[in-house]
This record gives sequence, structure tokens and C-alpha cells, in this order.
Amino acid sequence: MRIAVDMLGGDHAPHELVAGVAQALLSGDFTADELLLVGPQDIIAAQFAELGVSDVPEILHTTDVIAGHEKPIDGIRRKPDASILKAVAACRDGLAGGIVAFGNTGAAVAASTIGLGLLPGVRRPGIAVTLVGANGKFVLLDAGANPNPKPEHLFHYALMGAAFSRDMHQHSNPTIGLLNIGGEASKGSPLLQEVHKRLEDSGLDFVGNVEGNQLFNGVADVLVTDGFVGNMVLKVVEGFGERVIQVGHERGHDDQMKDVVRQLLGVSDFSEAGGANLLGVNGVVLVGHGRSKASAVLPALEIVRAEIKTGVNQHIVESLQAHTENV
Amino acid sequence: MRIAVDMLGGDHAPHELVAGVAQALLSGDFTADELLLVGPQDIIAAQFAELGVSDVPEILHTTDVIAGHEKPIDGIRRKPDASILKAVAACRDGLAGGIVAFGNTGAAVAASTIGLGLLPGVRRPGIAVTLVGANGKFVLLDAGANPNPKPEHLFHYALMGAAFSRDMHQHSNPTIGLLNIGGEASKGSPLLQEVHKRLEDSGLDFVGNVEGNQLFNGVADVLVTDGFVGNMVLKVVEGFGERVIQVGHERGHDDQMKDVVRQLLGVSDFSEAGGANLLGVNGVVLVGHGRSKASAVLPALEIVRAEIKTGVNQHIVESLQAHTENV
Repeated sequence: MRIAVDMLGGDHAPHELVAGVAQALLSGDFTADELLLVGPQDIIAAQFAELGVSDVPEILHTTDVIAGHEKPIDGIRRKPDASILKAVAACRDGLAGGIVAFGNTGAAVAASTIGLGLLPGVRRPGIAVTLVGANGKFVLLDAGANPNPKPEHLFHYALMGAAFSRDMHQHSNPTIGLLNIGGEASKGSPLLQEVHKRLEDSGLDFVGNVEGNQLFNGVADVLVTDGFVGNMVLKVVEGFGERVIQVGHERGHDDQMKDVVRQLLGVSDFSEAGGANLLGVNGVVLVGHGRSKASAVLPALEIVRAEIKTGVNQHIVESLQAHTENV
Repeated sequence: MRIAVDMLGGDHAPHELVAGVAQALLSGDFTADELLLVGPQDIIAAQFAELGVSDVPEILHTTDVIAGHEKPIDGIRRKPDASILKAVAACRDGLAGGIVAFGNTGAAVAASTIGLGLLPGVRRPGIAVTLVGANGKFVLLDAGANPNPKPEHLFHYALMGAAFSRDMHQHSNPTIGLLNIGGEASKGSPLLQEVHKRLEDSGLDFVGNVEGNQLFNGVADVLVTDGFVGNMVLKVVEGFGERVIQVGHERGHDDQMKDVVRQLLGVSDFSEAGGANLLGVNGVVLVGHGRSKASAVLPALEIVRAEIKTGVNQHIVESLQAHTENV
């Protein structure tokens, strides 16, 4: 199945994205028939010619884009030909098996949810971000799709995250943690207390509440939280990491800082690599950072290809089914 | 006015705390008559003798302590002679003008709130943490005293934080930001939207919503958030900083990482320096990290002395009064 790439999303579109796709093709990591590009036909074709790409993927032409500052729902209503909507439609119609979308995250979430629908049993999609801790890769979700969740949503995020961790991070029996501000089951809001109870009764390998300072210490492979806290935590880490690099630079030990921070932010150092996975929608959707440059494209494509191949979505459906029957 | 020090709080009490007080005395930064120590008379006196401290501060004897893992309210009920309660009582009775408390944060907050009462106009105390961004020191509050605040509490935190920033960080007209997951006034919960409006109408130098990635970039001198998010953010940064140091160590560039992370965490690198300020109670209370070692004592004492001298609490009361009259 092809992967549809929204070539108009993000701060550096389409130039950096075309350069990134060109790299993926010229390196032999991807063939043209694995990709479906959504964006301005002429500009993309001209840049490919310049870069020496002869085997050009099919291009679905459009020049409309929902910009980063636009309200997702407004953009979706006003711009039926927006690149993200065309990419989603291509996926819905079977022309592609997955989507890579840089740019307006809210628009990608809304367009995917509306256009692809949700997987059976799922009530709300969640954004899963991969970071690197003392025990290797771990996934944090939700990172912003659902700031005000119900207990069931968070419980489903645990199941989705576990399926993702098994298939994509090779944790065969992933440990699940609930982000909270204290270790005891009685800590946090009534919402968190209820989710704590459900996870304890779930048969999952639940390690209990995880505090902020434990996030990177490998205590859990899947960290569950609401979209407000998840988004805040992710962005704080991103900003703090940038500041570490800056201060390191001012002090003359530039590269060391970058290396270390990049290792920890893993594929979520969005401007250079990968992106976040939208889980729960009936399709494979990777949302890249709006600041993504060319080097982010190949990792993003590889993640989507792996998700399709391992069948994460099928495993999510099976897991939700099993845990719903058990209740 | 003397500063009461709880010599039994934290993981390394009383040994490291006695060593820290000894350093403060032997360096000449503090005199014995500026301090009132609360803890085991014999042990403290013996260690002072060993360390060559001849001019020993008065010691209020007790051997009881509310441990880090104890529920604050249980500890307060069961241990009337607990060191934190004796320190608070000394402050209430005019024997001291401020308190340094390492150890159980919840117990320090509860004991201070019950024992000292709140400043006129204040409804809830808040924990203010000092961090260092691109524009120098900034204060983040609440960092955990009030996880489920009302709009008024957050508005008061802005006023308290501004008074603290003026007096303690020398920002004469501090900028105020509201931690949120998007820049627009319509972002976040109804709670945050209401606080946004109150801050806009307040006459304070309100810069609007601040996202997580902007926390360290100097955009605001005072960052307002609820105690759940504030505690999470603080601990995430602490844990991420530790992980940066660890990975740096594994890669052989140890000291650079430590320097940079310490600079950013400022006085809130709790195990080595300073602590968090409990604002809103009728007294000056600094809550140190439970992991504090000797080197944390002098900075903590200096902060409390400065808070007493600059009259932060008086300025908080005046600010609340002015802003209540304006409404």
C-alpha cells in the first residue's frame, strides 16, 4: 500500500518535503510506487527534475493548504481541496494505506477522524509520541488530541499504547504507567483514580502512577495521560532540550549537548526526524512537526510503513475487543 | 528575626543539614542569633562541636519527624512534636520570622497553612519555584499545593508571583504568562479561559498564554498554572535534566552537562541549592527538596532572609487589596 504525503504542510513546505522525498527515493529506501504525493504538481515535478529524481511518484495536484495558524474546523470547511483533506480522502478510498502529514496537527487529527472514522471500539483518537528513556523507546499518549478525556478514553489509550509498543518498539509485554503527581493510588483527580483502578484490574502490566521525574528513567514503556498534560510535558521537554543546546552552545560545547538531547527526544525531535502517531483512527496517520525539514521525511515514511506492516491497528482492535469482553 | 530550620526533614537529616548550617555559620554568612534549629539537641550539638562551631544557635529539641512517605494530615495529627510543627509554632509565636523546611512538602504546606494562617485576601497558598530562562530567573506557580484551583486562586497566584518576582528577582515590571496548550485566548479549559480574561483586564503586564516549549525562553517572568500541571512540569524538567546528565556521563562529557542543567534549574536543583517558596501563608516558608544535602542549606537561608527583608508578604497583601478594590 502506498503512503500519501501531504507536501504542503509545515513551515518549510513544499521545498524541504520534496527534498526529503527525493532523499528517500535516491537512497533506495523507498520506490516511487510506494508513495502518493499530495501538492502542487508543477513545483514538485520541477524540483524532482533538478534533484535528479527520474522515477517520480504519482502526484495528486492541489495548491490549497490549511495553515498552521488556522482553526482546524474552519480550514476543513473552507478549503475542500486542502492537501490534508486530499491525503485523507486518498487513504479512505484505498489509494493509500497511510498518511504522513506535517503542519497543522489539529487539522490532521480532525480531518483523519472525520474522513477515516475510528477503529471499532475506539471513542477518541490519541496522539502517541515516542521518546527515549533509560529502557529504550517509550510512548507517551495522549499528546494533545483529547485535553479533557473520560476514564474510558485513557484506558483505551493504555491499550492502544501497549499495542503500539509491542509492534513498533519491540516491548513484548510493555509496562504501563499513569502520569500523576504522586505514587499512591489515591493521588490525583477522580478521573485518574478511576483509570488507576481500571488499569489495575485490566491484566495489563500496570506499574501504577509515574511521576514527572520518572518519565525518562525507564519505569514504563507506555505512559498514559490526558491531552493537556501530555502536550504540555512534550513541549516543555522540547523547549528545555532546546535551551540546554543553546546554553551549551554559549559555553562552547555545542555538539555534545545536541547529541544527548537528540538521543533523549528520539524520533520526536520533530524538526529533524519522524513525528507523532495518531492512534485510534481507521488508518495509519503520522503527524510531523510543523518545523520539519527534509531529514524528517524518511524516518516518518519508515514509521508509517512499519505500522502498516506490523498491523498495529488490527492489534488495537483485538485488544479493545478482548478488554471489553472481559469487563 | 530568626529563621527556624527543621533539622529533621529530608533524606539526609540531620547530618547534612547540621553540616550545612555549620558552613553558613563558619563562613560568616549567618550568625548564631539569626537561626533557631528544631531537632535533636544532643546530636546537633555533638556534630557542631566536631565541626568546630563554637557559637551555636538555640536548639528547640525534638526527635519526632513527619517522614517523606507519611500522609501530611495523619502525621500532623499523630505527632504533635514533629519538627515541622515546632518550627511553624515558633514562627507563629514570634520566635522566628521564617522557616526552612526540607522533607515532606505536603506536611510543610499543611502545617504552615494551619499554623500560620493565610495572608489577608489569599484563599489558597501556592508553591513558587524559581527557574532560569533566557531572560534570567522566572517563577513558576503553583508547583503542587493546589492541583484543582478555582479561577480566583490562579489570579491570586499571578499577583503573588509578580510581587515575588519584583522583590526577589529584580524584575520591576514582571511579565505574566498563563501556561496553556495553545496561544489563543480560547485555548484550554473554561478555567484557563476565565483566568485569561481576568489577567487581560488586570492591568498586569500579561503576555497571554505560554506554551510548554516557551517556558525557558524568557517570554514571561511569572508563569501561572494549576498545581497538577506545575508539579508535573517541574518534575519532568528535573527528571529530563538528570537524564541529560546521565547520558552525558555515559558519553564522557560529564561536567559540561551538569553545568548547563544546573544553570537552567537554578535554585531549584533542589538536592544542592535552595528550594521552593510557599506563598500566601502568613509567614515566610521555604520548602527544600527531600534530597537536599549540606550545600542546599545556605542558599535556602539566604532566600528566606531576603524574603523577610524585602517584605514580599506585605507586597502580596497590598497587591491583592489593590486588585480586589479594582474589581
